[in-house]
Amino acid sequence: MELSEARVAVVGLGLMGGSLAAALCARNACREVIGIARRQSSLHTALTLRFIHRGETDLCAGMADADIVVLCTPVGDILQKLGEIGPWLKPGALVLDVGSTKAAICAAMADLPAGIQPVGGHPMCGKESSGLTMAEPGLYQDRAFVLCPLDRTAVEARSLAETLVRAVGARPTYLEPARHDRLVAAISHLPFMLATSLVLAAERVGADDPILWSLAAGGFRDTSRVAAGSVPMMMDILATNRGPILDVLRLAQTELAELAESLQADDAAQLRQRLEAAAERRRRI
Amino acid sequence: MELSEARVAVVGLGLMGGSLAAALCARNACREVIGIARRQSSLHTALTLRFIHRGETDLCAGMADADIVVLCTPVGDILQKLGEIGPWLKPGALVLDVGSTKAAICAAMADLPAGIQPVGGHPMCGKESSGLTMAEPGLYQDRAFVLCPLDRTAVEARSLAETLVRAVGARPTYLEPARHDRLVAAISHLPFMLATSLVLAAERVGADDPILWSLAAGGFRDTSRVAAGSVPMMMDILATNRGPILDVLRLAQTELAELAESLQADDAAQLRQRLEAAAERRRRI
Repeated sequence: MELSEARVAVVGLGLMGGSLAAALCARNACREVIGIARRQSSLHTALTLRFIHRGETDLCAGMADADIVVLCTPVGDILQKLGEIGPWLKPGALVLDVGSTKAAICAAMADLPAGIQPVGGHPMCGKESSGLTMAEPGLYQDRAFVLCPLDRTAVEARSLAETLVRAVGARPTYLEPARHDRLVAAISHLPFMLATSLVLAAERVGADDPILWSLAAGGFRDTSRVAAGSVPMMMDILATNRGPILDVLRLAQTELAELAESLQADDAAQLRQRLEAAAERRRRI
Repeated sequence: MELSEARVAVVGLGLMGGSLAAALCARNACREVIGIARRQSSLHTALTLRFIHRGETDLCAGMADADIVVLCTPVGDILQKLGEIGPWLKPGALVLDVGSTKAAICAAMADLPAGIQPVGGHPMCGKESSGLTMAEPGLYQDRAFVLCPLDRTAVEARSLAETLVRAVGARPTYLEPARHDRLVAAISHLPFMLATSLVLAAERVGADDPILWSLAAGGFRDTSRVAAGSVPMMMDILATNRGPILDVLRLAQTELAELAESLQADDAAQLRQRLEAAAERRRRI
């Protein structure tokens, strides 16, 4: 099947789902974009913005004739839906998701009925603010979009998933689920843990001297930004990626302890060497 | 003396000095803005941009008839200059600085010749990129500008410093040097240490699997941004604020260890409570 002939059901119209639907619609990439959301008001907004062609609040009805189903809800909800949707999917449908961790989701995808074509997915983009009102068709442009086909996934389905990813402007990047989860632990979940510990440590200082917060400038704001994200979404991520996150936390704790030791010992040469290594690496990104 | 009658010498035409000079010039806030820089090319650029009225490469000649001298170089250079400029300052001159730590600088200011009016200063602003080409007259607008007058500083001089700070659009905020240094350790130097440890930890994962860097999205970029800053500038800050930075590093290490323990123990209630406290606090900034 060609993407241009496919009906695509986007389940969950938040930032990620709304932007995916919007990109498909704006580019006329497929036959129909069906938006599925719990609230009628979300469907109304998405229709008004021309992000979807048709809206459904009923998951089963919305998926019934969809050739491609893209699950765009938080990880915990994706896992739950994967356990329920099997009987309602159109035979042979491609099931893709955009969840932040992949091992648990791909394991759940393995239990979908025979013939269903599962591909785990994770686009490497996001924004400070979530929700449909922040969605935009350009969100995926030039971003890496990780794809994790299963052993059972047919070549045609992999190809269809890749076409969809390219259609929204993203770069398909194939990774094993475990490898994906190890990498995002370092690049995405560790920043969150460090930002959270920064805010909690500053809070201790600010509790004695609240003028602290009026001094917070760009450096604090940037470094702590991700700590303001959705807690339920992050709890799902922590629950489904514990091992890899604990591993990178240990790495960061070691680095932080070594920085503190160099400072404590007033070892300028060692401090400078570490700071220069980090600065040089960061500037190359 | 009124600011409008004063000759202001800005020593160092990087991001901070260039922007300060530009704001004073753009608003016609004083009689003359004299830019002092080592390189003739910086003076040429600043003159072309109308950031200064006159340029000098010779520090003594540039300061000779200045009623206000603002030291806008890194902390180590400010400390060195404070030890040298005494004999060359105009009697009664106000000496202000924009250095990132205040205890060491205010201690050095105490040794300036009698009659000289010292006020430590630290504007809470900055940018990812430094240098004169990034300078802009609006940099200080609505930012806190910490002022640390010394016991010896005359009331008129404090008032003149405050007028200058308001003239560039900033909010004067009076703090004791030690209190300033404790607060910026938490709000500015700790973010730098955490960002550096993040990059170094990610580097360890990326050394085995370099595709990591192609996955780095907004969250990693923001959280690590300050690690790309000037290493010599940061080395000066670490050297002059060791104690307070070590204190807040210990706070952050404790918070990080407690997050790791909650995750290790799979204690969702405790994790959620910490994440919500941080998210709620961060959203209030």
